[in-house]
Amino acid sequence: MTPVVAVIAAGAMGSAVGRRLVENGVTVLTSLAGRSAATEQRARAAGMTPVADEALAAADILLSILPPAEAEGLAERLSALFATAPAKPLFVDCNAICPDTVLRIGAVVAASGTPFLDAGIIGPPPTAGGKGPSFYVSGPDAARLLSLAPFGLEIRPMDGPLGAASALKMSYAGITKGLTALAAAMMLAATRAGAADALRQELAASQPQLLAWFTRQLPSMYPKAYRWVAEMEEIAAFVGADPAARTMFEGAAALYERLAEDFRAEQRETGALSGFLGQ
Amino acid sequence: MTPVVAVIAAGAMGSAVGRRLVENGVTVLTSLAGRSAATEQRARAAGMTPVADEALAAADILLSILPPAEAEGLAERLSALFATAPAKPLFVDCNAICPDTVLRIGAVVAASGTPFLDAGIIGPPPTAGGKGPSFYVSGPDAARLLSLAPFGLEIRPMDGPLGAASALKMSYAGITKGLTALAAAMMLAATRAGAADALRQELAASQPQLLAWFTRQLPSMYPKAYRWVAEMEEIAAFVGADPAARTMFEGAAALYERLAEDFRAEQRETGALSGFLGQ
Repeated sequence: MTPVVAVIAAGAMGSAVGRRLVENGVTVLTSLAGRSAATEQRARAAGMTPVADEALAAADILLSILPPAEAEGLAERLSALFATAPAKPLFVDCNAICPDTVLRIGAVVAASGTPFLDAGIIGPPPTAGGKGPSFYVSGPDAARLLSLAPFGLEIRPMDGPLGAASALKMSYAGITKGLTALAAAMMLAATRAGAADALRQELAASQPQLLAWFTRQLPSMYPKAYRWVAEMEEIAAFVGADPAARTMFEGAAALYERLAEDFRAEQRETGALSGFLGQ
Repeated sequence: MTPVVAVIAAGAMGSAVGRRLVENGVTVLTSLAGRSAATEQRARAAGMTPVADEALAAADILLSILPPAEAEGLAERLSALFATAPAKPLFVDCNAICPDTVLRIGAVVAASGTPFLDAGIIGPPPTAGGKGPSFYVSGPDAARLLSLAPFGLEIRPMDGPLGAASALKMSYAGITKGLTALAAAMMLAATRAGAADALRQELAASQPQLLAWFTRQLPSMYPKAYRWVAEMEEIAAFVGADPAARTMFEGAAALYERLAEDFRAEQRETGALSGFLGQ
């Protein structure tokens, strides 16, 4: 039986996930309420079906895939609608948020009588012919999301409680996006100090794998930096019991905030980073 | 002409550099003033010759290789002695300190009439048969240190002014030791959240090169964490024009301070890290 799936929103990840499901015969609903023209275009290009928010209740499964700062607002808005709906979808929060935020969202969703699961997406958006990211899932009956596995998504139920999937996502993103922040900070510092060429040459000689990783990861960071600000703040909250780590991620959030602003405006620092990497 | 070289102190790096020079026929002086019994033992095992501080003035070249927090104190102490000495060595500060600290130390040393160069050591200590680290050197007539190249050291004069070698060292160490701090923080956070196994498996699947890097670097970090506290503080000062990056390295300094204390005492967190890596 092919489920009806709602994917909100049709951002870079959401639209690619939507397209993958559509290609596998799934009807994919989405909401365009409050979204940009670019999002609407991505949704239509992916074959997703825009509907009024009220109609989302008719989906079997709803995947919330948003910039992390918007996750809680969407859950509150839809829960208010679903509370009086005759049928309710399985609400799966797939956002890069810390377990405490997941539990808060889960409580709001559950209060409307809507079943809730926590998911963490690891890996880049699905591409044509490519494998696509892993959806780690946690919570009571996490295996329910395996119903999407036949439709082109990699679903990995976890044993842990609600929040375990987000804990994994936070830990993983803390390493990868934290490293991207560190590398950007030090390339910029080296450039300011006139040591950029020497640093690139020394990395090429003694850390070629790291330099190759930076060369792949940094250029794709610039347009995503604005989303990563809230993600770094969620990771800072996730490591809250460790004040030293929290400070590191508060710094990373501030760095991405500046780089996002730079990318939007004059592109001086992102230009310097591209220059460092010869791109 | 074989130079007489003073190396202070006979720590892990200093004693290995001393041994390499001794093996190449160089007389290597050192000072044991205020150093531990372990340092004295390392110095003698390396074939270094302990002398009174006053006798250090007779060396042709003096390499200051210390935990970064001690660099300035040594320079002040020796400059006071050298001021009245008939001959003075070329004083080379090889410590992981920021360019501003280098310039401050350089001013103290120069005031005593002692010539001064800035160096940054990148890479692990020389081992028997191994290549050894690179000594990047900057400052007026940086090429003078090439006189050590025939005696087993890799010397790389830079074009930049005094401080350029340390800027490179700060940038490089900010990436490598910053990444080690990030990885440690997230492995510990994942362990607290019960997500350690899932994180290790996901890293093995999607970031095998990073996981291999962590597996090499983390275990050798525990005994060095105490030295890295001041090094992270120097890097925080180095990136001072970038408040976001400064915050990241203040966090890294605090993390290494805690890990160093843990390693000295109960080893709970360093034990957790070793457990994560299966070691």
